[in-house]
Formats: sequence, structure tokens, C-alpha cells
Amino acid sequence: MGEKVVSLGARGGEAGPRGRSAEEVDVRIAKETLNKAVSALERVVKPRAANPLSTYVRAEPLEGGLALAGTDEEVDLEVRLEGEADGLGREPFLIPGAPFLTLARSLPGEEAELRREGRVLEIRSGSFHTSLSLAQAEGYPELSLPGEEGEGRFGVAGRLAKDLFLRGFSAVRYAAAKESYRGVFCGVQIELREDGLRFVASDGYRLALQDLPASLGLSARVVVPARGGEEAARVLSALEGEEVVLAARKGALGLVLQGEGVTARMALRLLEGEFPDYERVIPQEFALEAEVETEALAETLKRLAVLSDGENRRVDLLFEEGRIKASADGLWGQGEEEVEAETRGPALALAFNARYLLEALAPVEGRARLRASGPQTPVLVEPAEGGGYRAAVMPLRVS
Amino acid sequence: MGEKVVSLGARGGEAGPRGRSAEEVDVRIAKETLNKAVSALERVVKPRAANPLSTYVRAEPLEGGLALAGTDEEVDLEVRLEGEADGLGREPFLIPGAPFLTLARSLPGEEAELRREGRVLEIRSGSFHTSLSLAQAEGYPELSLPGEEGEGRFGVAGRLAKDLFLRGFSAVRYAAAKESYRGVFCGVQIELREDGLRFVASDGYRLALQDLPASLGLSARVVVPARGGEEAARVLSALEGEEVVLAARKGALGLVLQGEGVTARMALRLLEGEFPDYERVIPQEFALEAEVETEALAETLKRLAVLSDGENRRVDLLFEEGRIKASADGLWGQGEEEVEAETRGPALALAFNARYLLEALAPVEGRARLRASGPQTPVLVEPAEGGGYRAAVMPLRVS
Repeated sequence: MGEKVVSLGARGGEAGPRGRSAEEVDVRIAKETLNKAVSALERVVKPRAANPLSTYVRAEPLEGGLALAGTDEEVDLEVRLEGEADGLGREPFLIPGAPFLTLARSLPGEEAELRREGRVLEIRSGSFHTSLSLAQAEGYPELSLPGEEGEGRFGVAGRLAKDLFLRGFSAVRYAAAKESYRGVFCGVQIELREDGLRFVASDGYRLALQDLPASLGLSARVVVPARGGEEAARVLSALEGEEVVLAARKGALGLVLQGEGVTARMALRLLEGEFPDYERVIPQEFALEAEVETEALAETLKRLAVLSDGENRRVDLLFEEGRIKASADGLWGQGEEEVEAETRGPALALAFNARYLLEALAPVEGRARLRASGPQTPVLVEPAEGGGYRAAVMPLRVS
Repeated sequence: MGEKVVSLGARGGEAGPRGRSAEEVDVRIAKETLNKAVSALERVVKPRAANPLSTYVRAEPLEGGLALAGTDEEVDLEVRLEGEADGLGREPFLIPGAPFLTLARSLPGEEAELRREGRVLEIRSGSFHTSLSLAQAEGYPELSLPGEEGEGRFGVAGRLAKDLFLRGFSAVRYAAAKESYRGVFCGVQIELREDGLRFVASDGYRLALQDLPASLGLSARVVVPARGGEEAARVLSALEGEEVVLAARKGALGLVLQGEGVTARMALRLLEGEFPDYERVIPQEFALEAEVETEALAETLKRLAVLSDGENRRVDLLFEEGRIKASADGLWGQGEEEVEAETRGPALALAFNARYLLEALAPVEGRARLRASGPQTPVLVEPAEGGGYRAAVMPLRVS
């Protein structure tokens, strides 16, 4: 194979001293390592994209392995794979994303041998062999990635347990606005502080925030688009590694994760702007407080929502001593159910969009505490035992 | 509740001797039993239907329980549920399907109490209570169901292990034509014989058949529409019960399944006509025979299909001594792989639609035997150890 002469096309390199093309690449990567990279890259490299080059995976041979990168509108991702590498070339090249990712996932052997000869990437694994047509790296979107410690154009923000980051993001993500014209409210605001961080999202009808303990070096406020953040969260979940390096620069949040044999660097394009003073809208005092089994209340809401018609999925809650009486009414009929609750305060009747209340309850484990004053002010939902999560939901205005 | 007077509308009954409406129904059903019925009914009762009444579940109170029925274009289904029943009414009524099926699945208590009062069905379970608006049974499609032993307008055809029926249907279903204008070829032909039965499907490019041992009393040939048969198979899977009673009449195949507390009766509307003499197209003699690990060949085909462009997903197979060399070629590049095989006969090169060959291999467990003569005749695929399954696939015609 080493002596094989391949038609290299216009950009073809010349034969080097060992009879190899100057562009040859020879990398051996464990299948397991490659699989990890693919799990991460397939979140970002889509079969269709506004810029056709974004359907490609950008590959760059390194001294000790290979860097594979991809981008969509919102996330830049590079995954460095450790592998046995004696490649001579250093120039990046583009591999067609759809076939490469699908094939790399299902190779028959325990390792993959990648070899570039001019405009062709040869992949061998077991008795399988493929030659994929490469594209030139020219015109590929420029990726803006943080250094492995967050350095470079990014200011170092510190390190954080990966699970905390994922927990924070997933706890509030539901409350972000879905309509793209809502601007900054389509995002999740991440507030990095010296002694911790906070995730906040709000679409104007409800708000969710999650405070997390962490000792970060730097303070910054950034708003990541909810969808891009979700992609990044999936990439982090797909990869091993305990700690995430967070780094911020104007316009982007950098994330770096080091796992066994794999290092991922990401840049999330940020939304411009910042949330207005949302704490102002969270009431500090309440007339009524109720504690319930979160799951019992959620199941009741789900059942009754079946009966409520229309967009707002109205379910009525009557807070009384010792219980919440829930009811709904619609085209098919009506229904009601009681949920045991420890209540303090006067009886209170409120109507909710069942979906909003269900989403607010979803991150709560164990018992939930609901606090309310009336139909004009938001209801606060928290875990009874604390934990940094709080959600505010506006009741429906009903006649 | 017994004394409650409800506005009964035009069809309202009069109060009976115990102060109850003549239409009252009072049935207590274990939640588990109700869940089984729902799993079956939701395959047939859809949220939307050409006839709006088909979105309802037809309920009929029985001496020892309740019969719930539904229909779509292709399948009529009735599920009889055992329960404690002291209802007075016997008239059927219609329950709105979508809310009823969703709610019945998620009741909080261990049992459900159903009670009809005029045009309202009250359901109580735990602290949950709902009143669903009923529709009149008038105008509901007439269901044509077999008796519990297949009698009635159906001729008795015999009993069959449920698993055999499911296995037979699912082994050949893939080969049925998808385009509705293909008439009888959109169906699966079931051939009932004294000593066994056969399932056959073909779209003209491939054919699949499954012979099964069973002692059936009657002989008949029926063609069930593939989609309706699939619904029926899902209903059978959802319910307990070892044996299916098969019964045929003009235009319909009857299926009866008895499980604990639940008896299901189904009628599948048949396609008109019969398959032409398909055995004629299955060659009896072959130039080449090859035995392979089914999964190894399938994995190879899946990998190479990634590289083959276009509708026909062409993969080339070269049968040689001791192996099959598979290859594919497309826009992104090309690939090849070898699969170990025991071959007898001369080397032979054939091209296939990878999907067709993969689907033909899917029902084969263990090793597969492929027999072929050339590009003009179908290739026969079977389990090397037999078992009644055979598939014929036409190679692609290539220049």
C-alpha cells in the first residue's frame, strides 16, 4: 500500500522521500475512540446545511492523532483523537460527513486505519475498505475554538463538573422562548460568578433558574441559544470526562472536555444582549404555601390536561387545607382529582396552563413547594428541600 | 351518586325501580384488565378518521363485564373485559376515543368504576373522577365479528399458536407492495391447509414465504392487506393468550384470542383476488450455492449501502470460493468488504438492491443459504437449517 500511486488531481502533492505523497496521512485509531468522536460530531454535522461545506467533517492530522471538526450555525466543535500517527501531511482536508459518520460508527474491526492519498481518504477496518472523495478545505467556515485550557481569544473562566453544567442547563431550558423573533429570550443566560453559576431562562410567561455551587475564577454573563446549548449538552453527554473548562469571549462561550483518548473543544455562538432584571418579577412574599408530592401533582395535571381543550390547556387548582382540588373542562367532558398537600394560608383558586406547570415541576425531585398570592402574581415552584432550582409561572387570567 | 338525576337529553331513559335510570351502567374493572384492552384498541381507534364516529370507542355492557370495540378502514376489533357488573342497561354507547384511551391508561387507582348516566360516562379511579360526553351509537359502522369459536357468519378454520401466526406474518410482510394501485400485491396471502399454513407476500421484485406446521380444520386462501394485518398483529401482541382461532368468510378473516379477563375478536377486511401462481417463478435448480453468517453479510450490506447512491442502493456481490466479495460505488467514494462463505459452484457476479437483500435476510436466524444462477433469475435466500422461510430476490439488471 505504501508504494501505491494514486491520481492526486490538481492539488496532488509530490512523492516524498519514502515514496509517499507529501499529503499522505496514516493514522490508526481504536474503534472505540472513533465512536466517541462520531457520537459528538453527529450532533453538529448535519446531512443538510445552508453552507454545503458544513456537511463535511474537517480533518486535521496531528502529531499524536487526528483532529475532527464540524460546525453548524450555532456550535463549532473539534474532537481530538489520540491515535498512532506517522502521517507526513499537516494540511486539513474535508471528509463527506454523512457517509463518514455512518461508516465510522459501524466499522467491523477493532481499529480503523485512515490514510489520505491526495483527494481520497482510505479507511480500512477488518476486511472493510473504503475510499472517500475529499473536498478542499478552502472556503470551510473558520472555527473559533478555545485552547485546551480555555486560553487563546477566550478568557479563562474556570472549571466545572460536567454533570453540574448539564443539570443546570437542562433544568431551565424548557422556559426559553421558541419563537425566533423573541431574541435574547430564545436563550439560556449563564451567569458565571466567582463562587458559583446560575442558569436562567424565561419566555415572559414563566421563568426558571438554577443556582449551582462552583468555584469559578471569572465573572461573566452570557446568553447561549437554547438549541445550540442543547447540542452542546448532547456533545458533552456523549463524551467521557468529569470536568468542563468554561471560557467566555465576546460572541462565544468556549467549552473544553477531556476524556480518555478524546479531547473536545466547543464554541457556542452567543445571543446578543442580556436578560432584563428578572429577579424583580419574582415575588418575595406569598399569601399561600403548599407542599405536595411532585409526581402525584404531575400525574394529576397530565390526566386532567387530556380533558382541557385549546391552546392554553387550562387546569384549575383550588388550594384548600390539606389538599389541592384540581379540575378541567372541555369538549369531551370534565374531570377532577384531589392531591394531598400541606398547605399554609387561605384557600385560593388559580388556573394554569397545565403544560407550563408540568414543565416547571419536571426538574423537581421529591416534594415540591408551591407559593402563590393570587391570579395577578407569579406562582413560585421549588423543591421543598431546596437545591437551587426555582421556577415562576404566571397563572392564567380567567374571568 | 345513585340518586343523582342527570339531564339525559332526547334519548334519556326513565328512572328504574331502584331509583336508577334505565340506562345506568355500573361496571368495576381492574385497571390491569382495562390497560390490556386499551393497548389493543389504540391500534385501531385513531384520533382522526374519515367517519368521525370511528374516533369513538363503542361500549356495550354485558352480564359479566363490558365489551369495548373500535374499527378503522381495515380492522374491526372488540375486546370483552371481565368485570363486576350490575348495570341495568344493555344498549351500546359511544365514548370519545382519544380522551378515553389516554385516561384509561393512566388511572391512579387499582380499579376503574364506570357508570353511565344518560349521555355521560362517569369514570372513577382513586380520587380521580371524570364525566365524558357520549355520542349516540346510531350511525356507528356495523362490525362484522366472528363468534368466540369462530362461528357465526365465519366458517371455523381452526386454532393456531399465536406466536406462529405472528412469526409467519412478520417474516413475509416486508415483501408486500407499498403502492395502493398494486391491488392484491399490497397484501399478505395466508393459505390455510389441513396440515399447516403459509404466508406469502410479493411486490414483483421479491417474494417471501413462510410455511408453518399447524393442524387446521379447514382450507382457504385469503389475502389480508399488509397494513391491516400489521394492526391485527399488534393487537395480538398486546394481549395475552396462547392460541388464536382463525376463521374465514367471504371478505373477512376472523381472529379470536382469549386471555386472562380479556377476549378479543377481530375481523380483517380482505383484499379481493388471489396471488397468481408464484411458485412457478421460484427456480428449482441453481448453479451456485453459498452459506454465510447472516449477520456478517447483513452488516457488510448495511455498510456498503451507505456508499451506494440512488434509488436502487446497488451493492455488487462476487461469489468466489470461500468468500463473497461485496462492493459499492457512489458519489462519495467506493468501498468493498469480504464475507467468509462456503460456496459450491462457479464464481458468479451479481448486483442487488441492498435493501431488498437485507430485508430478505432479516427473518433468517443463524446461517443463511443463498442460491443463484445468474442475473436473469431470482436468488433464493433461506435459513441454512430450514424452518419454512424462503425469499426470492431479483438481482439488478446491470449493463
